Amino acid sequence: MAAPSEFLKFVDTNADGFIQRLADAVAIPSISGDASHRSDVVKMAKWLENHLKAVGVETQLVDLGKHKMDGEELDLPPAILGRIGNDPKKKTVLVYGHFDVQPASKSDGWDTEPFTLKIHEDGRLIGRGSSDDKGPVLGWLNVLQYHFQNKKELPVNLRCCFEGMEESGSEGLDDLVKKESQPGGWFDGVDCVCISDNYWLNTRTPALTYGLRGLTYFKVTVSGPGRDLHSGVFGRTVHEPMTDLIILMSKLVDGSGKILIPGVDEMVAPPTNSERSIYEGLNYSIADVEESAGASIALSANKVDVLMGRMRYPSLSLHGIEGAFSGVGAKTVIPAKVGGKFSIRLVPPQTPDTVNPLVISYLESEFAKLNSKNKLTIESLHGGKPWVADVNHWNFEAAKAATRSIYKQEPDLTREGGSIPVTLTFAESLGVNVLLLPMGRGDDGAHLLIS
Amino acid sequence: MAAPSEFLKFVDTNADGFIQRLADAVAIPSISGDASHRSDVVKMAKWLENHLKAVGVETQLVDLGKHKMDGEELDLPPAILGRIGNDPKKKTVLVYGHFDVQPASKSDGWDTEPFTLKIHEDGRLIGRGSSDDKGPVLGWLNVLQYHFQNKKELPVNLRCCFEGMEESGSEGLDDLVKKESQPGGWFDGVDCVCISDNYWLNTRTPALTYGLRGLTYFKVTVSGPGRDLHSGVFGRTVHEPMTDLIILMSKLVDGSGKILIPGVDEMVAPPTNSERSIYEGLNYSIADVEESAGASIALSANKVDVLMGRMRYPSLSLHGIEGAFSGVGAKTVIPAKVGGKFSIRLVPPQTPDTVNPLVISYLESEFAKLNSKNKLTIESLHGGKPWVADVNHWNFEAAKAATRSIYKQEPDLTREGGSIPVTLTFAESLGVNVLLLPMGRGDDGAHLLIS
Ligand SMILES: [Zn+2]
Ligand SMILES: [Zn+2]
Ligand SMILES: [Zn+2]
Ligand SMILES: [Zn+2]
Repeated sequence: MAAPSEFLKFVDTNADGFIQRLADAVAIPSISGDASHRSDVVKMAKWLENHLKAVGVETQLVDLGKHKMDGEELDLPPAILGRIGNDPKKKTVLVYGHFDVQPASKSDGWDTEPFTLKIHEDGRLIGRGSSDDKGPVLGWLNVLQYHFQNKKELPVNLRCCFEGMEESGSEGLDDLVKKESQPGGWFDGVDCVCISDNYWLNTRTPALTYGLRGLTYFKVTVSGPGRDLHSGVFGRTVHEPMTDLIILMSKLVDGSGKILIPGVDEMVAPPTNSERSIYEGLNYSIADVEESAGASIALSANKVDVLMGRMRYPSLSLHGIEGAFSGVGAKTVIPAKVGGKFSIRLVPPQTPDTVNPLVISYLESEFAKLNSKNKLTIESLHGGKPWVADVNHWNFEAAKAATRSIYKQEPDLTREGGSIPVTLTFAESLGVNVLLLPMGRGDDGAHLLIS
Repeated sequence: MAAPSEFLKFVDTNADGFIQRLADAVAIPSISGDASHRSDVVKMAKWLENHLKAVGVETQLVDLGKHKMDGEELDLPPAILGRIGNDPKKKTVLVYGHFDVQPASKSDGWDTEPFTLKIHEDGRLIGRGSSDDKGPVLGWLNVLQYHFQNKKELPVNLRCCFEGMEESGSEGLDDLVKKESQPGGWFDGVDCVCISDNYWLNTRTPALTYGLRGLTYFKVTVSGPGRDLHSGVFGRTVHEPMTDLIILMSKLVDGSGKILIPGVDEMVAPPTNSERSIYEGLNYSIADVEESAGASIALSANKVDVLMGRMRYPSLSLHGIEGAFSGVGAKTVIPAKVGGKFSIRLVPPQTPDTVNPLVISYLESEFAKLNSKNKLTIESLHGGKPWVADVNHWNFEAAKAATRSIYKQEPDLTREGGSIPVTLTFAESLGVNVLLLPMGRGDDGAHLLIS
């Protein structure tokens, strides 16, 4: 089904107004991670609430309480709840987005003023939040405006959940979602969720995202000496913590990305043929990976292997060492206590609860082999479960049909290598299908420049 | 031969004056590494020169030119050259010491004012420089005062070389020593050298030191991505520099201290029986090592193995990584460029020139095994040769006899695990026997507190 020509005409006629509205939103520097901009986040919440009301949405600003940031106690910006329609014959769709942004300044490398929306000569709209995530939120507003002004009934009941703390850990949101998912809450009766806060795989093909990896993050500390020692005096007389730690870290992952902790890679089933065909069908190449990495360093020349490495296999990355010499120059220290940091991206059926015991017992047994008199401590710093949705659910079928009608092509079905924690919150609190519908292109640069 | 009772009586009679003179020296904060104290180093040079003249030494302050420190151009403090006696029938002994000190303040943990000499209740003299190295320099002055005041002829011709930049890399000294070692120079005709700038092995037994380890310091850099990457997006899609580097670093040394670079440990001959007996004879225990390390982490329960590990075997220590995540917390970064730092302490016949090619070719061949598309760069940051002297030389025999006559016991014959670069400068420029005659005890804490 093609999009109604009446709707497409409305979009063309109102394009300047839509762009001006995005420019107004971008102009509010609603940086949630900067205490001095907290009032701008609140201002942005009120601005958005007013625009939602103007197109017929019933709204509520929810006080999420207080939190501490940089040692200062601050009021959390309110979340916005909204609803239109209560027809029991229609599906009820919950839409999520966020109206806060990351910091940005010309000194960070922006060519343009980040909080002034600029139309690039190629047509792209450049400004902080234009893609992450004010643009997608305003996309929903534009659709609602069409229905409101033309007195068209929405084909679904709509619920909204817009927050102002996403870039700072979504503080307060989990409790809100759980509470409103109860009978009588704003999200009671929701049949599916649509989140627009991620990106296409490339610049050419729209995408629907059905999976996210989880994470488990470790700090492995080896300590021994009472204080840092001089390598001239103590070299080859004592068990050096760095020697032990480097040996342990070298046993976690090999140069090809294979995880060496017994049982971890093995938890993941091999891909089915139909699953492989999803990866084969993605409009993506090794060149795309290497362009975004900035070098020809892909682990394989096979596109399916590289995409599966990101999307459907776990990965283990070594991030660094706390307590070792990390400066420039040549310091001959034997550090007394060193903490290696690494994390594992998880895929179903892995969870921190099932993977962590394997990691801990492997590290302990490898450390025992060293016969070291140093002390080993293993800490789990944080973690989150992976998420995968059923791509054949009617929620995805509807999104595929919508993509075809607007873009005249099939969407890429993607899984992301990273996490969007709120996805899991909705999936678990509501027990319904969740869909990620990215509106941004693969080169939008979330958290970097231009977006 | 016992020390002349007349001399011992002189020392007792003049002890208060000697201590007051040390207090006067400690009170001048001649910190060579702090530009704001440069005038104090110059003041200390003039103070010392005057005291040397007062006991009959012919002196010269030598301008060593300028140098840059912390971006500022500064005049180097002068070195002091001195001489007494020119009797061709006597041996000519060159004495070295330094009159600059490391920084010190109560905020660093000093219990007492560091630049005020304090007599501890157990009789120790506490103050910055009291042991490193103003105390030893003043030890020579006290001996000269005895001869001068009592019109005793010295049994040797004496030459002095006292510098004010030892704690800041001895800048300018190498050139001076080479120049003055030429025919007609201040050091022409020197038969042996005595350096008092190190420590006893313990608090019980005087020591003579006949060896120092050398050093070769490496930075091994693995780079690939154009910038730091997010482990969610790139984990298991690209060759990660940290994975490659950690594997390389893990192949350098094992948990028992054995160096895994082929040919490096093998360059060192096994100890002879007479050499082993030197280590067996040292007044030292595993408990001493572990007390100074602050934990029970000695590599062996055998005292001879532990002492040989420090003194006569090479050692390899891993110091840290530049460019990796080193902060607290949990950052999920894939660092684009990481530089591992390690150094090898060298013993004869090893030199940086003979060891470095083995290190480089081993790292290159281990990196090749990884089949990584990342780039490897190996840099030698600095290095120095080891030094070992003949303990049967008359210079050592004289020092042993002197030790017996004062302390009524045989000195420990020690080698040090670290470096004192000036030792090699004298040995190579003059081609004569060099002896280290420590006056400080093993618990004096050079560069730490109390000394
Ligand atoms: Zn976002
Ligand atoms: Zn974001
Ligand atoms: Zn010194
Ligand atoms: Zn020193």
